[in-house]
Amino acid sequence: MNAHTLHAALAQMCAEGAYAERKFLASAAEMAPYLREWRDVWRGEAAAVALPSCTADVAGLVRLARRHGAHLVPQGGNTGLVGGQIAFDRQRAIVVSLKRMNRILRVDAAENALTCEAGCLLADVQAAAETAGRLFPLSLASQGSCSIGGVLSTNAGGCGVLRYGSAGDLALGLEAVLADGSVWDGRRALRKDNTGYDLKRLFIGAEGSLGIVTGAVLRLFARPRSSVCAFAATPTPEAGLSLLRAAEEASGGEVSAFELLPRIALELVARHIPAARLPLPPKAPWHVLVEISSARRQAEAAGVMERILQAGFDNGWVTDAVMAQNTAQEAEFWLVRESVSEAQKREGGSIKHDVAVPVSQVPAFLRRAAEAVQAALPGARVVAFGHVGDGNIHFNLSQPEGMGRQAFAREAGRLQRIVYDLVGEMGGSISAEHGIGVAKREENARWKPPEELELMRKLKRALDPDGIFNPGKLTG
Amino acid sequence: MNAHTLHAALAQMCAEGAYAERKFLASAAEMAPYLREWRDVWRGEAAAVALPSCTADVAGLVRLARRHGAHLVPQGGNTGLVGGQIAFDRQRAIVVSLKRMNRILRVDAAENALTCEAGCLLADVQAAAETAGRLFPLSLASQGSCSIGGVLSTNAGGCGVLRYGSAGDLALGLEAVLADGSVWDGRRALRKDNTGYDLKRLFIGAEGSLGIVTGAVLRLFARPRSSVCAFAATPTPEAGLSLLRAAEEASGGEVSAFELLPRIALELVARHIPAARLPLPPKAPWHVLVEISSARRQAEAAGVMERILQAGFDNGWVTDAVMAQNTAQEAEFWLVRESVSEAQKREGGSIKHDVAVPVSQVPAFLRRAAEAVQAALPGARVVAFGHVGDGNIHFNLSQPEGMGRQAFAREAGRLQRIVYDLVGEMGGSISAEHGIGVAKREENARWKPPEELELMRKLKRALDPDGIFNPGKLTG
Repeated sequence: MNAHTLHAALAQMCAEGAYAERKFLASAAEMAPYLREWRDVWRGEAAAVALPSCTADVAGLVRLARRHGAHLVPQGGNTGLVGGQIAFDRQRAIVVSLKRMNRILRVDAAENALTCEAGCLLADVQAAAETAGRLFPLSLASQGSCSIGGVLSTNAGGCGVLRYGSAGDLALGLEAVLADGSVWDGRRALRKDNTGYDLKRLFIGAEGSLGIVTGAVLRLFARPRSSVCAFAATPTPEAGLSLLRAAEEASGGEVSAFELLPRIALELVARHIPAARLPLPPKAPWHVLVEISSARRQAEAAGVMERILQAGFDNGWVTDAVMAQNTAQEAEFWLVRESVSEAQKREGGSIKHDVAVPVSQVPAFLRRAAEAVQAALPGARVVAFGHVGDGNIHFNLSQPEGMGRQAFAREAGRLQRIVYDLVGEMGGSISAEHGIGVAKREENARWKPPEELELMRKLKRALDPDGIFNPGKLTG
Repeated sequence: MNAHTLHAALAQMCAEGAYAERKFLASAAEMAPYLREWRDVWRGEAAAVALPSCTADVAGLVRLARRHGAHLVPQGGNTGLVGGQIAFDRQRAIVVSLKRMNRILRVDAAENALTCEAGCLLADVQAAAETAGRLFPLSLASQGSCSIGGVLSTNAGGCGVLRYGSAGDLALGLEAVLADGSVWDGRRALRKDNTGYDLKRLFIGAEGSLGIVTGAVLRLFARPRSSVCAFAATPTPEAGLSLLRAAEEASGGEVSAFELLPRIALELVARHIPAARLPLPPKAPWHVLVEISSARRQAEAAGVMERILQAGFDNGWVTDAVMAQNTAQEAEFWLVRESVSEAQKREGGSIKHDVAVPVSQVPAFLRRAAEAVQAALPGARVVAFGHVGDGNIHFNLSQPEGMGRQAFAREAGRLQRIVYDLVGEMGGSISAEHGIGVAKREENARWKPPEELELMRKLKRALDPDGIFNPGKLTG
């Protein structure tokens, strides 16, 4: 079996009308956008790129792959950060891009449910929900290009998890094509269903390794009436967490984002991102961005935030604070938060860790991880920020002043090992929201308990015995 | 292999100290409480009842079962309604009661997490959370006797699902003993972890058929500051649902219960439950019990409820309403809701259906199901009530006036088929919260799509290839 055989088989399938013409690409030039991703970290190879336009097309591809011993690598918006969507086999791999399957099939405001195909862009789903007077709360930097199939297959997180959960929590139902070419249509809009195993959850976060997600029923929510955003200086991560708990109690669970930023993050943003304006000068060691999305009227919600901040001042959790006075200012606050990665990139090399620990362990983790990293590489600059309300820290490192980018890059393995070992010791996760893909596959195999790896392998063998789906990712 | 061999093997395991003395029962008298349940619907048989006191004990039982070809039937508080916890094999079945494993290991208020053994009573977990100033929101009629392992293994629901989710949504981590005798310790307290398949969800709602849940880490929440309860008359289920949507928007998702009651339910409660006092006379065709659990002060929360009811009157969704003035009155409202099953039982025979449909389909389902049932059995009285906010209706039937209890019972199969077929046609579930067990196994096999049954069988074979765990339940 080689690429030529696959091309002939794909062409024959098209000619037979089972899979309409021009639904696959085979030239290097046409395939290029599907083989690399925007950061150019991974460079893939494939025999072909298939562009199915319906679930039956995807099922046809699975049957073809079985017949010819090919592999299928599902791809949504090609925005994944760990290479899960990239193919690495010039002879046997077919990239299955879901981008043509981008229809929103139904928006049911009364049901608080939206049914769509897997290739729908997240931003299009958000917009369709808004048009119907509802909220689809998943929100990511890549929302203009990432797809629903992709966010479900990676269980994407983002900034609204604290209140609304991760992508997987927002799926009421799924449709997936299985390894035998059959289609499981689980696109049900039920809030309760105790008639067996939770099949939907098998495919959430599975990175396309157990089947190809082709459609979903998503949960919608009432749109909050008001939104209030504050930016506060806090002396320690402990103080920040005390403020979070007070905010949750005072607002009744209406805290929709709670992001932690160290002083160095603000300094880097000020240095490298001209469009960004700091809400507060970078004086305090830590800052938090707090957002409340409320059913209250705007003035009432602002009152709740004022009481939260006042409690912060009274208890010493907050040393300075500013509330956004309008949506433009809110956007300014968020721009600072969202510019940290870009600012760090412009500063030089980065060694990144997308980790989680129990929320109450975040302060201890930040202290111990910084000490360990700086002991291993004196001068290493810790830019640790992120979704502290979920225990999810982007523990990123910038090189010591004066160190070369290449020399720093060579330290990555050693420093990552130190961070991941500490995460393990503290009962955490080495991938909070980005997934495993190829980037963390070996580290995950080293790091996960053997019973857990064995359970995962059993599931993989049971659902994909011939290893058709996304080989070399996640479970290996 | 027979019961005597198993007794000898259990005795030997005890003698070797791997499993301390008196941890199994073998006499008919001692086993009796574990072989029947409180309603006396199922009468089981077993070779022995094992009473492990730690996870290693449970692992030892799995190894013993493998060696001797025995079956293990996990049992928590023995409160299940579908026979999932009952053993039916006098020679080969060992009931594994988790009741001795009832320790709360850790309550971490800062983390909003509680770690306990599977045999912990739900009420004890609620109390431990309360002592720590937190809320564990799962609430069931059987909470004084049901166990955490049981509620997770059946993904129990109850009245707080609308706001807090079902039991499975409240588990951050699990520990389970697997079919090879190994222990998967997934008792992590993480809000985000994207390092592989969601193994925890495999065991949620699996009725002990994939492994024995031995421990859990549960999510806790901030305690609401106030609670407001209203009882309202509504002309139609459609009007009731409009009130629900208005209540969700006005309260910002603080609706913690929304229960629908038909007039006949109030009449039966008035007739048979002397302790119950109806909040409103049973005049309107439908009533709803609305509860808001709020972070607001009591007076503010009451104001929100008043505005919701006023909107209900203004729009014709509400024709009469009363708000509980204190917690005693709140308890009175709830007593009416919780007495419906008992009142129906005292009225005569019941044919019950614990079904779900999409929330917006509830009114159509209620109308169509009542018509179909009454066409099949003229005079059949429909007592359809329940968690309408989750689309979960307890569609119960009382016999026509004058019909004998036995004659009515003989109609069960025919009437259930009618109801379940309609549920299927409307994209619903034939078991919203009670599970499948033995009671609905055949109906489920008939009713579920074949791809779904096949996926379930693949999972069962992958995780329990020798069929040790709870045979004859769920997947058969």
